[in-house]
Parts: sequence; C-alpha cells; structure tokens
Amino acid sequence: MIKVVAGVDIGGTNTVYGLVERTGNIVAEGNLKTTDYPEIHNFVSALAGAITNLMKGKSGIELAGIGIGAPNANYHRGTIELAPNLAWKGIVPIAEYVREKTKVPVVITNDAKAAAMGEMIFGGAKNMKNFIILTLGTGLGSGIVINGEVLYGHTGFAGELGHTTIVPGGRDCGCGRQGCFETYGSASGLVRTVLNLLSEMKEESVLREIPPSHLSSKKIAEAAAKNDPVALEAMDYTAEMIAFGIANAVGFSSPEAVFLFGGLAKAGEVLFAPVREYVNQMVMPIYRGTVQILASGIPESNAAVLGAAALAWNELK
Amino acid sequence: MIKVVAGVDIGGTNTVYGLVERTGNIVAEGNLKTTDYPEIHNFVSALAGAITNLMKGKSGIELAGIGIGAPNANYHRGTIELAPNLAWKGIVPIAEYVREKTKVPVVITNDAKAAAMGEMIFGGAKNMKNFIILTLGTGLGSGIVINGEVLYGHTGFAGELGHTTIVPGGRDCGCGRQGCFETYGSASGLVRTVLNLLSEMKEESVLREIPPSHLSSKKIAEAAAKNDPVALEAMDYTAEMIAFGIANAVGFSSPEAVFLFGGLAKAGEVLFAPVREYVNQMVMPIYRGTVQILASGIPESNAAVLGAAALAWNELK
Repeated sequence: MIKVVAGVDIGGTNTVYGLVERTGNIVAEGNLKTTDYPEIHNFVSALAGAITNLMKGKSGIELAGIGIGAPNANYHRGTIELAPNLAWKGIVPIAEYVREKTKVPVVITNDAKAAAMGEMIFGGAKNMKNFIILTLGTGLGSGIVINGEVLYGHTGFAGELGHTTIVPGGRDCGCGRQGCFETYGSASGLVRTVLNLLSEMKEESVLREIPPSHLSSKKIAEAAAKNDPVALEAMDYTAEMIAFGIANAVGFSSPEAVFLFGGLAKAGEVLFAPVREYVNQMVMPIYRGTVQILASGIPESNAAVLGAAALAWNELK
Repeated sequence: MIKVVAGVDIGGTNTVYGLVERTGNIVAEGNLKTTDYPEIHNFVSALAGAITNLMKGKSGIELAGIGIGAPNANYHRGTIELAPNLAWKGIVPIAEYVREKTKVPVVITNDAKAAAMGEMIFGGAKNMKNFIILTLGTGLGSGIVINGEVLYGHTGFAGELGHTTIVPGGRDCGCGRQGCFETYGSASGLVRTVLNLLSEMKEESVLREIPPSHLSSKKIAEAAAKNDPVALEAMDYTAEMIAFGIANAVGFSSPEAVFLFGGLAKAGEVLFAPVREYVNQMVMPIYRGTVQILASGIPESNAAVLGAAALAWNELK
C-alpha cells in the first residue's frame, strides 16, 4: 500500500482537493463548488464523499491524513473563524467535523501558511530552516518558517505581514486600518499605485484606456514589458514597497530567503530585479547579501493542493 | 555539590560576572574593567582567573558552564563580531577562548537576547513560550522568543527590531540608515523628541533650562511626573512610537507579552499606560486584547548577570 494524504484548499468560490504522495506526486484530484454548501455539515459530507470517491478510483493506496488550507483558519484550534468570504459564520470546528467523517487525522491552516509548508516540503525551501513566503494576490498573505516550523505565535494568527503598517496614515485597508503592507505590495496595491500615477504623471500610457475596475497586475506587467512609462514606474514603486516590507521582516527573523508567490509574482524580473536591489539597500549592513529573493519552486496550478498536502505530511512525520 | 553557572556581561567599560544557581540565586559576584584588557587573550585570562577566585571563595559548589552577554555577539559562531565599542577588532572567537581556559561549556549572545533568556528562566516570562523584550536604553535592543526559544534566524543576528524602519526618511540612526525604531523608541529617542518639541511648542518647561547634552530619560520622566507639558507630550509621542513598533512586531509573531526594560522603562505608568492604549488601537482586530505590555520581572541591578546565567542554564537543560 502506498500512503497518500488529501490536500484540500477551500476558497470562497471553489474547493480543490487532491491525493498526494510523500514525493509530491498528485495521484488524483477534483473540485467542488464551495458556494453549493451554505451549511457546513453538508460541505463536510460532500468533501468526505469526494475524497472517498477519489480513493476508490485508485488501487493500492491508503489515506494517511488530510490537510486543509482555508481563509481565517486557526491551526491551534482546527477552526475557521469569522471568514468574511465563506457562508459558514462564527467559529467552525471544521477539522473535527472532517475527522469524524473520515476517521483520519485532519489539520488546517490558512492558505499562506500552507504555501510556506508546500515550499518547505515540495518546493524551493527543501533545505531551509528559516524563510518567508509572501503571497501577492488580491491580498498579501505571508507564511513564516522559523527553525523549520511554521510560525503561529500565541494566538495561532502570527504572520500577518500584509497588515503590518508600512505607511502611517496611508491607504485605506480592508482590515479597517491604514497604510498596511497589503495596500501597496499586493496585486491590488499595484493597481492602486497605477491609478495614483495616472493622476500624477503626464506621460501617455495604454493603462489610460482600461477602466480602473478592469485593471489587473497581469495587464500592468504586460504594459511594463512594452516599456509603458506608467507601468514601469508603478512596478518600480511596488518593488520598493515590497522591499521595504521585506527589509523590516529581515530585521525581525533574518531569513535565508523570501519567496514571492501569486499573481503579482508572475510579473517576473521586472519585479524581482528591483526588489532584490532595494532589499539590499534597505537592510542593515549585517544582513546585506544574506537574503535570497526567490520565485516559488511550486507550480502555481498545483500550489494550493500541494501546500495543504504538505501540511498533512509534515504532521505525520 | 551545588551546581552554579557563571553569568558574564561584557560592556564597553565594565565587565560584571556572578555565580548563579539554577534558582536565580547569585552566590557571588564581581567585576573588572574591560578597558584594562585591549588584548583579548589577556581579558580571557583575567576573566577565567576572576571566576576561579570566586569559586575558591565558596565551598560545595561546582561550575557547570558559562554564559556571556556581549555587544555584537553571534550565538551560532560563539563570536563577538565587529563591536564598535570594544577594543578587540574583527571576529573574536571568545567562547572558544574561554572554554579552553575554563574547561566548561561556554555560550554567548548579545545583551538583549540574554535579557530575554533571563526573563524566561528567572523573570516574568517563566510560563511563556512566545514573548518579546525591548531594552530601551541608549539604543533599542530586542530579544524575541518563539516556541520557547530565542530567535536567531539564518545569520544569528535576527531580532534587530531597533533597526526596523518605522518612519521612512526619518531621524538619522547610528547604523547609517534613517527612521529606525531606535531613533524614536529608546531613551535617546525620547531626548531627541524633547529637543524637537522644544522647537515646536511654546509652553514653558524645566527642560529648557538643561543643556541638551545633559538631557536624559530620567530627567524627562521626572519633569513629566510634575506635569511639565513638553515632557508629557514627549512621553506620549514616544509611547505612540513604541506602540507602533510593537504593533508591527505583533503582526509578525503574535506574542503573549512584550516586556519593556532599561532606562526608559523606569518612567513607569506615564509610559506604560499610553503604550498599552496605543498598542490596542494599532493592532489588527484579531490581536486586540491578546498582548500584555509588562515591566521586566528582573531587578535591573542584576539583570545582566542573570540574563547571561540564564543563557548558560538553558543550554545545560
């Protein structure tokens, strides 16, 4: 019998899941619509049934555990807590519910922490004990690994670098505060920066032809690749702000590497090159040259399932 | 035989040392002038001799190890590296030198990390696994404990919160950069804030009668206790900046408590009360009410020796 774990990524719209060997090989995968199950017990039944069905399709494998990545997940308590984008309200002990249905160990964490675990078990951080991953999407998530362990802190909610303040009195943030790293360093932060630059700069730009609600980090990166001056300036400013957040994180935990992941990271060298340069300028002299800025070593299409699976494999070791 | 360790605190001017039981009881102590030994081997011989002499004065005790707190100490390498305030230049493998002379295990760290260890072993953090200590003196040092271990990071130099940037383009810092937490949140930061407020405010103040080079956090705290308007405003602004640095640290590691220690912390409630209030305003909602702001549980007169001794005891456990 070959042991596998199920990696499950619960999103506001879709839930994806897969059976994953210790090597990272995905044996089978599937998905279901999270929004079809406004009642948590129905969701858990559907998920357990889907995993059982996947197992039935393969012979010679045994389910050793389940790892779940979900928004507002609390690793310590096995709960999803007050998630604004899910129908399940309050504090939901989902790990316990899934364990009851499947009779295997279940562990849960948020998506950025799952990404960190994926990077450590299957990706570019296999030999690292101290690193940080930043997920640069609509929000800015972070997973921090210290001495080979994902950082949870006293509350289970450590590692919210996206909501550290980098500009006092700066941009309004969805968390109700101002100037959070997320409002400058995420994909949506890049869009906000473009809008600001369109007001400040006089240069022509293809970005002036796109309705603001249709702007995306992908379109801005494409414009930057064609030397659009506003896109280039926005990318450089965003790189500087990401570097600022990284430099302060380096002063805290002195990681060996910082991985950039998610939609904005796909921009590639037009983002990575200035981030590297600014980080080296901004950190204290004792840290210069000690921190690598790397792209994630996990293919994005499988990252959510592999991250959640890595969480389960790490628990079983 | 009762086991003791030697706790040694190497400062730019004086080195203090003591023999400390596992309970924190200081059996004997002494000091020597660091500046009398510009050659490191002479210093090591003098220190080893001094510890041996202390041991001779007591019967029934056995030396189990030595812990050293020193500026620019690297725990991983057992070295003092490029310390600007010590005569020993370059990278000094002092742990190895002291081990050769004394034949017991020797461990070294910087003073703020030793303070964190002292707090955990002998002080107010005995039952805590995740906390931070800020030493608010001429500089702003920090010791960060995560999962019961002092944070060293990839380089051994993690935990330089005093040199995270809290005001981009702000006050010049001794590290060559600008706007570091240390330039606002330390005792000397408070003095700088008073000077700035003396330029901005028109109120009378006893602080206008003191030459700037004679200003100290002690004098400012005394003026604040007498409701001096400039001193009160400076204390409030400093509390706000300390809270800002703490709030960002909370977003990183979600500690159970932050201890304030050192000259500025002696100001007491005039500092602690606004720090507590600002921290609770500034942190993300999920952290509200989760972080205690506490005075150190170690008497300052013994803190350096106890911190270094705690480091050694922790290594021996």
